[in-house]
Amino acid sequence: MVSSSSEPYVVSGGEAAGREVKGEDALKALSAYLADDMTACNQAIIDRMQSSVPLIPQLGAHLVAAGGKRLRPLLTLASARLCGYGEKEGETRHIGLAACVEFIHTATLLHDDVVDESTLRRGMASANALFGNKASVLVGDFLFARSFQLMTADGSLEVMAILSAASATIAEGEVLQMSTQNDLSTPIERYLEVIHGKTAALFAAACRVGAVVAGHNRDAELALEQYGTSLGMAFQLVDDALDYAADQQVLGKTVGDDFREGKITLPVLAAYEQGTEEERQFWKRVIEDNEQTEADLPHALEIIARRDAIRITIERAREYVGQAVEALACFPESELKNLLRETVLYTVERAR
Amino acid sequence: MVSSSSEPYVVSGGEAAGREVKGEDALKALSAYLADDMTACNQAIIDRMQSSVPLIPQLGAHLVAAGGKRLRPLLTLASARLCGYGEKEGETRHIGLAACVEFIHTATLLHDDVVDESTLRRGMASANALFGNKASVLVGDFLFARSFQLMTADGSLEVMAILSAASATIAEGEVLQMSTQNDLSTPIERYLEVIHGKTAALFAAACRVGAVVAGHNRDAELALEQYGTSLGMAFQLVDDALDYAADQQVLGKTVGDDFREGKITLPVLAAYEQGTEEERQFWKRVIEDNEQTEADLPHALEIIARRDAIRITIERAREYVGQAVEALACFPESELKNLLRETVLYTVERAR
Repeated sequence: MVSSSSEPYVVSGGEAAGREVKGEDALKALSAYLADDMTACNQAIIDRMQSSVPLIPQLGAHLVAAGGKRLRPLLTLASARLCGYGEKEGETRHIGLAACVEFIHTATLLHDDVVDESTLRRGMASANALFGNKASVLVGDFLFARSFQLMTADGSLEVMAILSAASATIAEGEVLQMSTQNDLSTPIERYLEVIHGKTAALFAAACRVGAVVAGHNRDAELALEQYGTSLGMAFQLVDDALDYAADQQVLGKTVGDDFREGKITLPVLAAYEQGTEEERQFWKRVIEDNEQTEADLPHALEIIARRDAIRITIERAREYVGQAVEALACFPESELKNLLRETVLYTVERAR
Repeated sequence: MVSSSSEPYVVSGGEAAGREVKGEDALKALSAYLADDMTACNQAIIDRMQSSVPLIPQLGAHLVAAGGKRLRPLLTLASARLCGYGEKEGETRHIGLAACVEFIHTATLLHDDVVDESTLRRGMASANALFGNKASVLVGDFLFARSFQLMTADGSLEVMAILSAASATIAEGEVLQMSTQNDLSTPIERYLEVIHGKTAALFAAACRVGAVVAGHNRDAELALEQYGTSLGMAFQLVDDALDYAADQQVLGKTVGDDFREGKITLPVLAAYEQGTEEERQFWKRVIEDNEQTEADLPHALEIIARRDAIRITIERAREYVGQAVEALACFPESELKNLLRETVLYTVERAR
């Protein structure tokens, strides 16, 4: 394992100027710290993606090639290690479960891209664009089933309960998101419920199972679950902000996707709430009635900037960042704990 | 439980004339025999379909209202009972697992209808036609996750291994079917592999878990698994025959669906194999090139009748019927065994 020479972060407040911005580096340092585990996890992912039906590993290879941050399996590996698991010979359960978590995530990505009719994912053509919607739905189902085979192989009912409940919650979050689509009267609490389901629930489960395999105490399990929840909430809030702020190449997805789909996210809700009557009419037309012209996205970005809606969204993310860092308090200081703290910061840094 | 006054069937050969055709009655008798279990199972299905997200039970209610034969949960209940489970106080595991099997099946139906762009299911508007593809994909995911929660609640790793493997096999079968679409050079073995995956694997798992909860011996488990496999193969072969033979109201689905989708099934493969050069050109145009006019379906039905392709398909189904009946040999004669034998016959009777 490679050591990182990272320094502690200032968690909240402060301007970007004069402060070391780590962003992606924090995540890279965590990956590097867990390099051996991640290599084993990547191998497990490739191995368990195999099938006698050629299209499955083909589509799988595309997804593996597309990369992604592997943030969720990293969380499982890091949580297990933070609880002292993985040092002894034969302590490998966290590897299989990290792969399992990534399979659940990949299955939901495949289905999301079908549901959202996305054509880009992580800056590459999405699987549905390349292989068609049918293949994406079915290979998603396959990966979902495989994830349960991985859990069964692990053999812990507690782990299964956590991950199967998270899987149900993800689907509920996605359905709820669909129900709020185009609806500007969606309360912020409903929006938060959506992002909890679609994102934070799996982050939380990924962290918690790490503690469970370590056989650590209940407090550690709950603390890591809280860390994952708050991290996931911050992560999704920033993701939603980036959809109205970021450059396509940085983001690896099409800017304005959420806008075009009439997805209800905090930047829109905040801009709508603060908006003039004229602006509200604009939002009603483009989001509720879904009548959009090419000029509407730039105009939307303008209003969002004017109403400070990105800052409002990032501020909300910062609250969760604080919670996530706080959740780690019960663990003694260590390099890994520091990296987990920095990973939280990464979620907000990438919005700069 | 209501007794059935059924008599043993003649399994193979013979003409319809002069023989009592039971068809649907056999399945009704099995349902009636297991009435208490089925009531409990239906209740479990309704209970576990609940969610704080209103659209999920709404779509669920549509699926429950659409009914369906509940053949797969019936198989779990019957298998458990055949192995002597369910008589004693507190022996209720088969109920939850039957619901679990139905959830897996319903999830695959929802996704199939999206993949196939079907508008009818069991004679009613399909869920995707009523609620949209997005809802069908996501609620399918939810039901799939719920099925794993039901397995976790049951707590048997053996059951989980069987059902999660079956779930992966179903997805593989569906992907393989997609790969063979429009391809008239598909070998019959590949077609059989497809229907094993998409249908027989869950029938087999549904039966096997019934034996597993009963804690019955390995021989009984394997016998019931074989029964389920063969029954599933026969069932799907007949289903594929009906797509070129049946009246829409009898079938509860649109006749010619498979034809329009360019799906490769035995009636087409048999007709193609036996066909004249002119007929082969026809099949190439309508199936491989997917160029179809309104007159093509009636013409296809004509050729299929001329080439005896329905009979060939049903004959193949009969072979599996024989295997399924044979698989029951290790169980002592009983009313339930008799009903399971008749259920096999039902699969072929409905093709008349």
